[in-house]
Amino acid sequence: MSAQAAGFDYGIEAIGAYVPRSRIHCADRAERLSVPRDTLVSRIGFDTLSVKDSGETTSDLACRAIADLLERCRIDPQRIGCLVVVTQNPDGYGIPPVSAIVHGRMGWPTRVASFDLALGCSGYVYALSLTAGFLQSLGADYGVLVTADPYSKIVDPDDRATALLFGDAATATLLSRQAPWRIGAADFGTSGDHAGSLMLDERRRLRMVGKDVARFCIREVPGSIARALEKNAAALDEVDVVLLHQGSKFIVESIGDALGVPEKTPFLAQDVGNTCCSSIPLVLAPLLSAPSGARTLVLSSFGVGLSWGSTVLRYAPQAAAPAQAQCAPQEQAQTQPQVLAVTA
Amino acid sequence: MSAQAAGFDYGIEAIGAYVPRSRIHCADRAERLSVPRDTLVSRIGFDTLSVKDSGETTSDLACRAIADLLERCRIDPQRIGCLVVVTQNPDGYGIPPVSAIVHGRMGWPTRVASFDLALGCSGYVYALSLTAGFLQSLGADYGVLVTADPYSKIVDPDDRATALLFGDAATATLLSRQAPWRIGAADFGTSGDHAGSLMLDERRRLRMVGKDVARFCIREVPGSIARALEKNAAALDEVDVVLLHQGSKFIVESIGDALGVPEKTPFLAQDVGNTCCSSIPLVLAPLLSAPSGARTLVLSSFGVGLSWGSTVLRYAPQAAAPAQAQCAPQEQAQTQPQVLAVTA
Repeated sequence: MSAQAAGFDYGIEAIGAYVPRSRIHCADRAERLSVPRDTLVSRIGFDTLSVKDSGETTSDLACRAIADLLERCRIDPQRIGCLVVVTQNPDGYGIPPVSAIVHGRMGWPTRVASFDLALGCSGYVYALSLTAGFLQSLGADYGVLVTADPYSKIVDPDDRATALLFGDAATATLLSRQAPWRIGAADFGTSGDHAGSLMLDERRRLRMVGKDVARFCIREVPGSIARALEKNAAALDEVDVVLLHQGSKFIVESIGDALGVPEKTPFLAQDVGNTCCSSIPLVLAPLLSAPSGARTLVLSSFGVGLSWGSTVLRYAPQAAAPAQAQCAPQEQAQTQPQVLAVTA
Repeated sequence: MSAQAAGFDYGIEAIGAYVPRSRIHCADRAERLSVPRDTLVSRIGFDTLSVKDSGETTSDLACRAIADLLERCRIDPQRIGCLVVVTQNPDGYGIPPVSAIVHGRMGWPTRVASFDLALGCSGYVYALSLTAGFLQSLGADYGVLVTADPYSKIVDPDDRATALLFGDAATATLLSRQAPWRIGAADFGTSGDHAGSLMLDERRRLRMVGKDVARFCIREVPGSIARALEKNAAALDEVDVVLLHQGSKFIVESIGDALGVPEKTPFLAQDVGNTCCSSIPLVLAPLLSAPSGARTLVLSSFGVGLSWGSTVLRYAPQAAAPAQAQCAPQEQAQTQPQVLAVTA
């Protein structure tokens, strides 16, 4: 075990989410694209994909996720130190950044720092570390971390490699000092040699060499999780759930097998698809109330870059801590009916 | 003065730069666009604008700036914790991010974390805080922070509001633990209400409401600098140079006047133009050797968002500190012949 001091003064207090109601039915699309039913069911694993309305912008999704967070938590905007948006699909062409647009629409004070992080499926773990570290340097009470990366803007519906994978969603995570779910130290990595495995072509359409990406993730992610555990002086035995990026059923199950704990690596995105940087916060949200006693979680996100990040969340409510925000108990999102069953 | 503990364990050790040789001559372009000579000389202030070759990509610029850094400093890649790229104009459409492409081209180890920050002219001060905080959480020896945002990709050469302003460049800043130029706490802010003042249109061309941007900067930046000074228990009296984002001669001079120290706010970008997030590191680089005794600097960057950030750099070499990287003395870049004169 490493002797290194691990983790941040900040933790996760609550997560808001927005999942568009419209769905693409994968069975229909698979038939049209001549993708075998067995491939869809046993490897891809998504029944439906959430999809935004064509008129909805990335900042719309972000604002709806924040609205959900604000319905649940009372947050004094004067105490927000930063607004971070993880996206690779900003409004228009990215100038101004989504974070500035959202800042304006929320009417938040000018003292709120804001920036966009251009990360893909590995984005949530990166953004947790960056936001927590940034808040620490600011000494601010709250940070709001938004994930909003609607891949429907870039997926070619006729491309068999990607048309059955990606769903649209957004989340808004409230970080606060002394929040109960403490964010641990993280392990990160990059394999720029594989940067071309997931890219936009000249028509701004996603192209993916699926086998490369899967092979890479299955090879690299277990080691990243092991290093993250070591940094936090934790053992896999004591981890209740390992929340992996919900890239596909095959990737989640393969990494679960490689770790030797397939029962701890649930695949929970059947109804929404791979929502990129939103996939982990979507499945994390219902666990935050710890109703069934989950107290140690591993998060591991991976994808575009290729890049990855893993960290440990520990439930450690502080008796003496002032309630940083008055949040109602985190309720189960309508879109993930299967989540609570996992920890039961 | 604030009692708050200020600043990071990390500092700036060296800066590499790449400025393309080609130049746009502003007098010629101003004549073509019927911009009065007096406006060009006394308000805009740029004689020439650096411009990349049409075939040069953003990752090309980034790699050339890193190559310049590596010529100057011996850095063991195994000790690099992260590679951060600030850009709003990535290769292609941003997937994969520039940082991953550069990571692959440099052949750096997989343990290097990498990500892109989508920030405009305010990006350097943001990125210093984010990178220093991230390094602290990683416990890594080095971080490499690249700025590379070639606006020639998005400027409409027939647009009078922007065609005489922006130049292309890239820089690579080496951050290390106990480096002599310590990075202080920073002040940040956003005015999302003005997000539309600088934006890309549907043809991916830059549109700017110049008067809005200028008015905003002149109103907000002096207060941001005052707050940054307070956070670092510093007074403007003891500051040797205030390095403002080199947006235009008018903006730099107006903020200098508003601060009451126009002699401390040099305009140094006549030859290159407004190089966006690269403008501050370009003018900071020649000051790092502190040959003329500059020991306390303020950096303040502002722009797209609209957003801003200000911080304090202090020269505080540590006698007992191991040389983190063997760097040759920072030499004056060929492109800024006027820099040293400022501190003389």
